[in-house]
Amino acid sequence: MDGGIDHLADERSKAEFDVDAMKLVWAGSRHAFDVSNRVSRLVATDPVFEKRNRAVMSRKELFKNTLKKSVHAWKIINELRLSDEEAIKLRSFMDQPGFLDLHWGMFVPAIKGQGTEEQQKKWLSLANKLQIIGCYAQTELGHGSNVQGLETTATFDPKTDQFIIHSPTQTSSKFWPGGLGKVSTHAVVYARLITNGKDHGVHGFIVQLRSLDDHSPLPGITVGDIGMKFGNGAYNSMDNGFLMFDHYRIPRDQMLMRLSKVTREGKYVASDVPRQLVYGTMVFVRQSIVSNASNALARAVCIATRYSAVRRQFGSQSGGIETQVIDYKTQQNRLFPLLASAYAFRFVGEWLKWLYTDVTQRLEASDFATLPEAHACTAGLKSMTTSATSDGIEECRKLCGGHGYLWCSGLPELFAVYVPACTYEGDNVVLQLQVARFLMKTVSQLSSGKVPSGTTAYMGKAKHLLQCSSGVQKGYFFTDTCRRFILVISICFLNYNVEHAAEDWLNPDMVLEAFEARALRMAVTCANNLSKFENQEQGFSELLAELVEAAIAHCQLIVVSK
Amino acid sequence: MDGGIDHLADERSKAEFDVDAMKLVWAGSRHAFDVSNRVSRLVATDPVFEKRNRAVMSRKELFKNTLKKSVHAWKIINELRLSDEEAIKLRSFMDQPGFLDLHWGMFVPAIKGQGTEEQQKKWLSLANKLQIIGCYAQTELGHGSNVQGLETTATFDPKTDQFIIHSPTQTSSKFWPGGLGKVSTHAVVYARLITNGKDHGVHGFIVQLRSLDDHSPLPGITVGDIGMKFGNGAYNSMDNGFLMFDHYRIPRDQMLMRLSKVTREGKYVASDVPRQLVYGTMVFVRQSIVSNASNALARAVCIATRYSAVRRQFGSQSGGIETQVIDYKTQQNRLFPLLASAYAFRFVGEWLKWLYTDVTQRLEASDFATLPEAHACTAGLKSMTTSATSDGIEECRKLCGGHGYLWCSGLPELFAVYVPACTYEGDNVVLQLQVARFLMKTVSQLSSGKVPSGTTAYMGKAKHLLQCSSGVQKGYFFTDTCRRFILVISICFLNYNVEHAAEDWLNPDMVLEAFEARALRMAVTCANNLSKFENQEQGFSELLAELVEAAIAHCQLIVVSK
Ligand SMILES: Cc1cc2nc3c(=O)[nH]c(=O)nc-3n(C[C@H](O)[C@H](O)[C@H](O)COP(=O)(O)OP(=O)(O)OC[C@H]3O[C@@H](n4cnc5c(N)ncnc54)[C@H](O)[C@@H]3O)c2cc1C
Ligand SMILES: Cc1cc2nc3c(=O)[nH]c(=O)nc-3n(C[C@H](O)[C@H](O)[C@H](O)COP(=O)(O)OP(=O)(O)OC[C@H]3O[C@@H](n4cnc5c(N)ncnc54)[C@H](O)[C@@H]3O)c2cc1C
Repeated sequence: MDGGIDHLADERSKAEFDVDAMKLVWAGSRHAFDVSNRVSRLVATDPVFEKRNRAVMSRKELFKNTLKKSVHAWKIINELRLSDEEAIKLRSFMDQPGFLDLHWGMFVPAIKGQGTEEQQKKWLSLANKLQIIGCYAQTELGHGSNVQGLETTATFDPKTDQFIIHSPTQTSSKFWPGGLGKVSTHAVVYARLITNGKDHGVHGFIVQLRSLDDHSPLPGITVGDIGMKFGNGAYNSMDNGFLMFDHYRIPRDQMLMRLSKVTREGKYVASDVPRQLVYGTMVFVRQSIVSNASNALARAVCIATRYSAVRRQFGSQSGGIETQVIDYKTQQNRLFPLLASAYAFRFVGEWLKWLYTDVTQRLEASDFATLPEAHACTAGLKSMTTSATSDGIEECRKLCGGHGYLWCSGLPELFAVYVPACTYEGDNVVLQLQVARFLMKTVSQLSSGKVPSGTTAYMGKAKHLLQCSSGVQKGYFFTDTCRRFILVISICFLNYNVEHAAEDWLNPDMVLEAFEARALRMAVTCANNLSKFENQEQGFSELLAELVEAAIAHCQLIVVSK
Repeated sequence: MDGGIDHLADERSKAEFDVDAMKLVWAGSRHAFDVSNRVSRLVATDPVFEKRNRAVMSRKELFKNTLKKSVHAWKIINELRLSDEEAIKLRSFMDQPGFLDLHWGMFVPAIKGQGTEEQQKKWLSLANKLQIIGCYAQTELGHGSNVQGLETTATFDPKTDQFIIHSPTQTSSKFWPGGLGKVSTHAVVYARLITNGKDHGVHGFIVQLRSLDDHSPLPGITVGDIGMKFGNGAYNSMDNGFLMFDHYRIPRDQMLMRLSKVTREGKYVASDVPRQLVYGTMVFVRQSIVSNASNALARAVCIATRYSAVRRQFGSQSGGIETQVIDYKTQQNRLFPLLASAYAFRFVGEWLKWLYTDVTQRLEASDFATLPEAHACTAGLKSMTTSATSDGIEECRKLCGGHGYLWCSGLPELFAVYVPACTYEGDNVVLQLQVARFLMKTVSQLSSGKVPSGTTAYMGKAKHLLQCSSGVQKGYFFTDTCRRFILVISICFLNYNVEHAAEDWLNPDMVLEAFEARALRMAVTCANNLSKFENQEQGFSELLAELVEAAIAHCQLIVVSK
């Protein structure tokens, strides 16, 4: 900005850590780093993957552009015989939401997790070759969070050995599934299973929606795109859709039957495969959401940090060069905690990968003991990291002043495409309430001598933690909020700018204990308040707000501890 | 959603206050309410003002649509001989940012405030009839917040009695002015005035940019649109532009000469009109920003509240009707404080109108005593209300679950169009630092016996406030954050949902005193820390972050007190 001085080179030369080593830490391993590097270059140098013109395209053009890119990516993956890991990277660097995200991310895993071996063989071989394209049709106009309230019905007709899929009300229309609006030929549809007049609750079914000849919707199917979403470009490259069934028939063997099945006679039979297996998939999906949070926040922070180093404003009385805005303490105070959070979310994401492996191995050995804790902790971390990332991207945008408001800064689109992560795969508030339920159960079991484990192990130190008045000021932690929390991780991780912080804050053990004490006290206070109610459910609803705060404190502790 | 039950009617019937009376309170007066009502109907029933198709338009179509609407509004205003008040309402209900916003909102006021009577006569008569269209060209690529750092030059050439306007560097390009990109024929351009080789700092000049015959840029002018901004529709209807001058000449009498002038000989002469007059305009502009904050937040809250009353999710064990999400305490905890804030910002906005009148009268009587305080308080309130409103709109969007992410919920576009209010008319952090400077000065004058007045009058009670340990828990207030603060106003205004709050919180005097004590203590702590530095400027930059917090606390107090 002022005669070609490269401020970034200047800032970079000042790094006090080994930048190459840090790159590997960020990537997770030398191998992951190499893959990432190689594939990113592949995408960056391929003109088909160009994104610069995305903002000026009409919706239709944008959608066609997604089709083109998806097909091109598919071609490259096959021609270069990319590994699964490489293919995933390629699609992520393509950086344009599209129908295949749901095909690979939800349709295929649903069949893997809930289909019998036979079903997997049949459908996965079609899906893996993209001979069919699938989406995940769960949410309805009337029900998102409350999956048990879905209204679509799948009624078994023993005469024809078929299920009749039907949308009995307007609110039962499927609404939101990505890839449904224009592309998908098939869907995993969630519907209430009804046999012999009995409602067995929500189950998954593989349903063909469009002709494989001319792509037109099959008779009995009404389907379309739900229209524009937040922002320009952003998630509008995705064809989120609506779907209604008018007594639409599918063969009986298209119910996903790994966990339970319907016999030729219409009898409902649970298999001996444990239901808990479904949670394994959830842990996997949420682990990848936490990694994505770290990626998205890192991108935003990278833009804002570089801009703050280049941008100069004020501070020159004598007409000389002005102050880099990164040198203002207010700018640092807003930016550095987000930088630290991006790293923290990275590390907790890596730990979640380990957790997924651990849970999977245990499930295979029919050990379900750690599942509730693993489930609560992934739900909570999904919620916490996506909320912090959404807010953080917008803060990064503001840190760039006027220029952050331009589409070409990259930040408006990043925000618009990222924020639904707070809503899909579980509304962030609803998820924290699940964590809270688990915490209340754990606290209530403390007195009966049950030893808490994993991320709740600290509760075993209840006596000590309830007594200790950690060197770090007590009141401070109790009225803590997310911003403050992030400041704390900032200090722990970056060890930056701490002249004004108490000595204790530099001692990780002390900080960890303070977070433990805080989380425990909040949980115990909630449990005590809860015990004053005769009706526990009523107590729970009265205390929702406090329960969410206690759950968040628990999740913050997990991030600090990993 | 469930068989046509009108949940809103049900909720509305439960109102415990006089809704019609509240409407008048919101509008400010019966007259304002009537005008608003009449003009809103005019706009709503006119097909030209239709906004439903805005999301699917290309940028060019959107821009043409703005031209059409603007011309149509102008026709109506003339044909129906609408008053100024009615015209302003009409443009605000049109609800589409456009070049005329800057013409009426910045170009005309700049000439009114800084032009001589003669200049006003000439230029305002053209501007008022839209025979010329003007914009406000201050910001450059390199300088936004630091106006004194602008680089464009206006060098007086005594030979021709002209100023030579020139852009000496790339960073001196004007960048951002609304209306500049495609439409404006003229601009008030801010440039460094140079006479006889001497730099007199930044001054305003009326500059013609485009031909009045064929609208092409005049020789020496390079001008264009800066491209897409945040979101879909939103602010993209505005032609924010860039502008470069190549030794472009304008007559001497196009310098705005009310406060200072350049004579035929090139002598720079300050007039006896006090410079402070400029601040009067600033108070006016910022007062309207605070009113707009209230409007924008109210729109978002209105959508989220209605949706929360209609939306039902969970809570029916027995298959009966589910719980309205507005009945969940978490939903209330997120929504009601925002509702309360919309009202609070309304009231403080009304008070700012009074302040503007007061300041104007004093200025006319050459009484500048209250100006610094009025200036600090409007700067701070602009910052605080726009930040809270931006965050609040996004929270409202999340409160609507998946449906809030659809463009047609109204919330994505409202957010995208609103957020730059945190940046324009003063970056919100930079503004709070101005407030902080003023507070530090006020504190330092306490010991010399100067009695603080207006919004700082509470500092006169310093002794009492520093001692009192208000019934409302001390620690709580000291580690307060914006969210908490909003909760407090929520309680003060709505008196809702306070079972768990200490009795004291229901006593407005007590709450006010707690806010006073908090603001004062934060200011005094900063002042004490500041006094430890030998170099005050260096101290100020070390303490920026704390200073901003103290300034925010002061602004929160103002909102609570009005
Ligand atoms: C971009 C995007 C992509 C999507 N893709 C898919 C897809 O591919 N397939 C699919 O099936 N679905 C998809 N969805 C739908 C998504 O899963 C749902 O939107 C999500 O589950 C939230 O449900 P909801 O919208 O019904 O919100 P609601 O549950 O209606 O939430 C509304 C409000 O009520 C609150 N609330 C709800 N229940 C409670 C409670 N018990 N206690 C306290 N508060 C409560 C929430 O916190 C929220 O503030 C997608 C959504 C989006 C935005
Ligand atoms: C939609 C929109 C419309 C606009 N319309 C117009 C218009 O019509 N006419 C016009 O002239 N301009 C216009 N502007 C420009 C606007 O006035 C500037 O963007 C604004 O003044 C902020 O300046 P900046 O962008 O240079 O931010 P910067 O000052 O560069 O801010 C960048 C970062 O540095 C920080 N920072 C800067 N200085 C300090 C400091 N001293 N201490 C601590 N932190 C600091 C800020 O907080 C911010 O985080 C518009 C801008 C937008 C976004």
